[in-house]
Amino acid sequence: MKMEAFTVDDIPLIKPGDDIAAIICEHAVLEDGDVLVIASTIIAKAENELFSLDNINPSAQAIAIGRKDDKDPRLVQAVLDRCSECFVESPVMLVQSDRAHVCINAGVDDSNVENDLLADLPRDGDASARSIGESVEEITGCRIAVVVTDTNGRAFRLGQTGVAIGLYHAAPIYHWKGTKDLFGYEMQISEEAVADEVAAAANLLMGEGSGGNPVVVVRGIPLFTEEKTSARQLYRPDNMDLIKKALRISKKS
Amino acid sequence: MKMEAFTVDDIPLIKPGDDIAAIICEHAVLEDGDVLVIASTIIAKAENELFSLDNINPSAQAIAIGRKDDKDPRLVQAVLDRCSECFVESPVMLVQSDRAHVCINAGVDDSNVENDLLADLPRDGDASARSIGESVEEITGCRIAVVVTDTNGRAFRLGQTGVAIGLYHAAPIYHWKGTKDLFGYEMQISEEAVADEVAAAANLLMGEGSGGNPVVVVRGIPLFTEEKTSARQLYRPDNMDLIKKALRISKKS
Repeated sequence: MKMEAFTVDDIPLIKPGDDIAAIICEHAVLEDGDVLVIASTIIAKAENELFSLDNINPSAQAIAIGRKDDKDPRLVQAVLDRCSECFVESPVMLVQSDRAHVCINAGVDDSNVENDLLADLPRDGDASARSIGESVEEITGCRIAVVVTDTNGRAFRLGQTGVAIGLYHAAPIYHWKGTKDLFGYEMQISEEAVADEVAAAANLLMGEGSGGNPVVVVRGIPLFTEEKTSARQLYRPDNMDLIKKALRISKKS
Repeated sequence: MKMEAFTVDDIPLIKPGDDIAAIICEHAVLEDGDVLVIASTIIAKAENELFSLDNINPSAQAIAIGRKDDKDPRLVQAVLDRCSECFVESPVMLVQSDRAHVCINAGVDDSNVENDLLADLPRDGDASARSIGESVEEITGCRIAVVVTDTNGRAFRLGQTGVAIGLYHAAPIYHWKGTKDLFGYEMQISEEAVADEVAAAANLLMGEGSGGNPVVVVRGIPLFTEEKTSARQLYRPDNMDLIKKALRISKKS
């Protein structure tokens, strides 16, 4: 079994209103079953999900957190405005973002955006993935999957990895439950987060900084599915989340 | 930029005492800079890190946890014997394993092992990676990197992904700190856990169950480094770990 992943080269700097699907199709030759992996930052830019700190009036809470974290209180206010729950305020803000996953700073990104603007996460990663995927399929005639990615820190481990925050015809998880292992026992490890693994693989090629490659094609793995899928299938339900439970108890104590 | 990953096919079932390096070299043609990604299970088997539940006498604590978790109390005892700290006892045992990372059940694996034996994690993943890597380099004359993997659950997200628990000449993390983004600002996201991303990419091809491919070659990314590296560089230091802190407070309350 073999997998390939390659960058779609020479993607121009994306501006609000740009047609990402058309731009990708100009720069890549796709095949049936390909997985298009797209960094959420360029989607946020194309969708004009940018904002300035200039018009933000920080609350007393934001000013207090900003002082503790040595952070611009307007940025803190922007994060508070974009989350339904703040699990940790200091030394970093770990929150449940309104738009997607549990992450630092509600996914607000002040790198790789021009004119002192900050980028939000896409409003709905699945909708962005679907819109781009359908356009690419129309242009190319190929059936493809799309994974929109963000980078995310992890519990217990250092560094960030790519994760999926939007899916189109891409399986989120393989279920091994009930399948037999090599000796006929029932598998214990039952769920593999394949969409996140694809996001991680693509992130190896995306890079950061000025060498950024925001679009990667992954070929050779059976991620494509006819089913309608969502990145929300990767998010642990609140009542099954032991870590959230501990963070809430810890915050109250 | 392009990356390839492919399985090393026809690896036989590994038995205690088997020479994994020699077996890999019989079944793969390697190149300078390749990354050999190896599932920890076959290393544990080759190193005879297997044990039976038969001789384990569960303590009162293990019996109590086993009752709550509907789990064999001897397995619970085996997990307790293999961890320095148990963060969560129920409904799953989340522990700091003695041998490697924070994980469920201290990495004890009862799938894909014969004769009712369970597999431990390798005693020292880095040492295993180095031993195999040096032998492969001697046989092939190529300079290669090795990543030993386990699969691991995540906070806030469902499913497991591949992670690195042993490294040989493989960079654990790329540091983007101080590099400039496309617009000359200093990068905020400063560390990419590349070894874990490689483990995740390879895990897409490894599969689970009876289709398991325990060895994958990743080619085309600059993971190889002359430096001595360790998977421990991926583990968050205890005093910087907000999640561990919350779990400890939660457990006491």
